[in-house]
Amino acid sequence: MTILLVAGGKPETWPDLKQYDIYIGIDRGALYILAAGYPLTLAIGDFDSLSQEEFDQVSSQAKTIIQAPPEKDDTDTQLALAETLRRYPEATIDLIGVTGGRLDHLLANLWLVLEPRFQPFAGNIRLLDHQNSISFYLPGSYRIRHEAGMKYLAYCCLTPVVNLTLEGSKYLLNNMDVSQPTSYASNEFITETASFSFDAGVIAVIQSRD
Amino acid sequence: MTILLVAGGKPETWPDLKQYDIYIGIDRGALYILAAGYPLTLAIGDFDSLSQEEFDQVSSQAKTIIQAPPEKDDTDTQLALAETLRRYPEATIDLIGVTGGRLDHLLANLWLVLEPRFQPFAGNIRLLDHQNSISFYLPGSYRIRHEAGMKYLAYCCLTPVVNLTLEGSKYLLNNMDVSQPTSYASNEFITETASFSFDAGVIAVIQSRD
Repeated sequence: MTILLVAGGKPETWPDLKQYDIYIGIDRGALYILAAGYPLTLAIGDFDSLSQEEFDQVSSQAKTIIQAPPEKDDTDTQLALAETLRRYPEATIDLIGVTGGRLDHLLANLWLVLEPRFQPFAGNIRLLDHQNSISFYLPGSYRIRHEAGMKYLAYCCLTPVVNLTLEGSKYLLNNMDVSQPTSYASNEFITETASFSFDAGVIAVIQSRD
Repeated sequence: MTILLVAGGKPETWPDLKQYDIYIGIDRGALYILAAGYPLTLAIGDFDSLSQEEFDQVSSQAKTIIQAPPEKDDTDTQLALAETLRRYPEATIDLIGVTGGRLDHLLANLWLVLEPRFQPFAGNIRLLDHQNSISFYLPGSYRIRHEAGMKYLAYCCLTPVVNLTLEGSKYLLNNMDVSQPTSYASNEFITETASFSFDAGVIAVIQSRD
């Protein structure tokens, strides 16, 4: 099952969308889903960014709506991700509308998968925008595929990483211990796939274009 | 002494600029400095993003130019920051043109101050764009001032952080140990200043607006 989670970042930042099984809107993202003509399975958030009229539109068209209080410990995106994983723990989840604009939000979204409650699902979550595709990896060995239209490949260590090896890409690393968060940016695929492995930490692989 | 370091991110992303003592251009940023009518003290990079004509313009107008080979271990921004700190170790440095677009670049720039060579200068470096002002802090106690026009205040732990206390802001923390990178986003000033302290790690304070 594939799920598209849409947060409040402007539709201009969205990637090209394929078909998904389920569409879930986070706060203003719910409105964007309706405006783009997709069905709204679930709307979740405090909705404090919506006018009464906009909120009425969301609540009349969403199959289910979960309204949270504005002052809460979790962000709307954390709430929505937790609820999505509770309902659909086997799904693959693409999250859009989470980049651009405020960097405190961007970082909160990038670091979601570091939280113990979300970490087991890291491999099922991607963040996407029109220039970037971000996948998350827990320790192991992986072969990844070059995504159409993307020029650059980056291995971003979100935490310290142990024994990082990069193979089959333009720039290589061999059994490298990385002691602090580090972006190995501007690497490139040389064939359709590249490989990497590591023994501890969390890595975001970013495919991007200018 | 105040220095503006300009990387290749588009001028639309720039904040309002005050006067600086020195302007340093990184790759295409050198061209942007000239286009904006500022003097170009130093131009640094591989300049592989410039046409011959653009490169000629930069090299004829820069007081000093340092051209690096395109295939190198450091990014242009790392090179430029290292050279700037070598020449002006006491300066305060604002870095613009480093956000937006490719997230592997953004993360590389955000994490510059975690590198041992740059970490001692963390308190002198800011990243700026039209929505965000990012300052960096090593362990200690600080009182920070609300920047004009910014609505939100965020404490972003770039590493694990020990004993984090937030005071004088809308949301508070008391002697919190933070075990992984975490963005305490969407906090707000309640007066003109707020305070925080911590005993280990590196924190980025982000003031931002929608």
